[in-house]
Amino acid sequence: MAGACRNGFKALKTIIEYSTQAVGFESVLNTVKLVEGGGGRCVCEMRVTDVLQNRGGTLHGGVTCTLVDAVSTWALLGSEDPVTGVSVDLNVSFMKGAKVGEDILIDAQTLKRGRRLAFLSVDITNKADGSLLAQGKHTKYIGA
Amino acid sequence: MAGACRNGFKALKTIIEYSTQAVGFESVLNTVKLVEGGGGRCVCEMRVTDVLQNRGGTLHGGVTCTLVDAVSTWALLGSEDPVTGVSVDLNVSFMKGAKVGEDILIDAQTLKRGRRLAFLSVDITNKADGSLLAQGKHTKYIGA
Amino acid sequence: MAGACRNGFKALKTIIEYSTQAVGFESVLNTVKLVEGGGGRCVCEMRVTDVLQNRGGTLHGGVTCTLVDAVSTWALLGSEDPVTGVSVDLNVSFMKGAKVGEDILIDAQTLKRGRRLAFLSVDITNKADGSLLAQGKHTKYIGA
Amino acid sequence: MAGACRNGFKALKTIIEYSTQAVGFESVLNTVKLVEGGGGRCVCEMRVTDVLQNRGGTLHGGVTCTLVDAVSTWALLGSEDPVTGVSVDLNVSFMKGAKVGEDILIDAQTLKRGRRLAFLSVDITNKADGSLLAQGKHTKYIGA
Repeated sequence: MAGACRNGFKALKTIIEYSTQAVGFESVLNTVKLVEGGGGRCVCEMRVTDVLQNRGGTLHGGVTCTLVDAVSTWALLGSEDPVTGVSVDLNVSFMKGAKVGEDILIDAQTLKRGRRLAFLSVDITNKADGSLLAQGKHTKYIGA
Repeated sequence: MAGACRNGFKALKTIIEYSTQAVGFESVLNTVKLVEGGGGRCVCEMRVTDVLQNRGGTLHGGVTCTLVDAVSTWALLGSEDPVTGVSVDLNVSFMKGAKVGEDILIDAQTLKRGRRLAFLSVDITNKADGSLLAQGKHTKYIGA
Repeated sequence: MAGACRNGFKALKTIIEYSTQAVGFESVLNTVKLVEGGGGRCVCEMRVTDVLQNRGGTLHGGVTCTLVDAVSTWALLGSEDPVTGVSVDLNVSFMKGAKVGEDILIDAQTLKRGRRLAFLSVDITNKADGSLLAQGKHTKYIGA
Repeated sequence: MAGACRNGFKALKTIIEYSTQAVGFESVLNTVKLVEGGGGRCVCEMRVTDVLQNRGGTLHGGVTCTLVDAVSTWALLGSEDPVTGVSVDLNVSFMKGAKVGEDILIDAQTLKRGRRLAFLSVDITNKADGSLLAQGKHTKYIGA
């Protein structure tokens, strides 16, 4: 079990590096670091930088959504039976801003993985004080 | 009325240029062109380029969400009584992919603007055939 | 085409009567009247009564959600190729209350119907003044 | 602290009885039993009965939504500084059905309570095996 998670972690690390260093939109997340992963879960850490900010000097909502999308997708890819799929519905509630310079944790977990659909939930928190910044949900179609 | 909309259009054009050319996350939308604007509505056009793609070669869901967030915010900023506010809830349903090279239209309208809350809806369509690619909703807190 | 819609209307009328008069939760909607239907759309009318109210004397949010769920499901059932399916995601934005005694219109349309998934949108308006009370979205899995 | 929760429990029990026994839509939840409450949380239990079913013989999605709405509202009412407010956005993901005769647990917690907005999350599980049936979120405006 711990071994499976270890493998999941290594595989996820490779997937995330590949995804965020290739040409494509996930390169906006190229400062993301994997903290924990495997078994349908993926936890990452990221510092809010000036290229990720909105006009108010805090994390742009589009980044929050991109994190919900990408990190939950990595959670599915980091399971023992990896799968990708396509997004069906994604929603985010914004509870608190994150200023440039602050570190955030993105914790994605698989709520349910069925034959056709996967349901994922993502908590984004302030690393320093643990306060909840945003919560997202992501439904993916994973059937053939 | 037409004059007000004209002014709204010019003001919006400036706002969008300012937002997408400054340092910050909206620079990922720096190829967006304003098509129609003013009176609480904002319609933009954008080509799907390789920096906006996912691993499948289509528009990344994070871009879709960023468009829902930004273009609906511009719709509020382009009204006669401009306001910005902060995001409360955002959701997107993904109906169809958009390939690299395709042009998309992003049409944001204000469903309701109250004293404290604004409700916005965004349709993203394929410019060539008019098919609906995604539909988003965005609730903002605009109170003092 | 008009004939197909006519048939759709009659079929829907029977379906709605059957659904709201049998033992089950849709009996809470037994005062709903079909206004227009067929071709993937379903428009109903209903008066807000005291059994549908919240403690504030307006339409309960649970009724709003039930209307989004049921009327969009009827829209799918009233198409030329009727299908039912199961709910995947449902969301509602609440813009304005409806008082006991007021009449509301519930207008459900099919945004996209694919092989596996159907995306539906529902506008709930005040019949007297046309103001938007709530907007809902409903994603259903319709695959085998 | 434990005393405060105890008081919260008693207060909530009265509120729930009052809400579900008066004339109004929450009477559809009149078989709900309070399991735990106070401090911004509310856990209830309910058996799926035939009046709550859909045509497929499982819990109707409209009931699921009504539970998300009501039980999260009770969570806010059962806090040390009770507040009610109005719904802004509500969404539900449906993961698994619940058959007539099964018992379900509805666990609502306050994710964040600010000055103007409250964010709540609701997990609905099968009591017997703990499997997640649905997850909902509810955003309320609680400002004056």
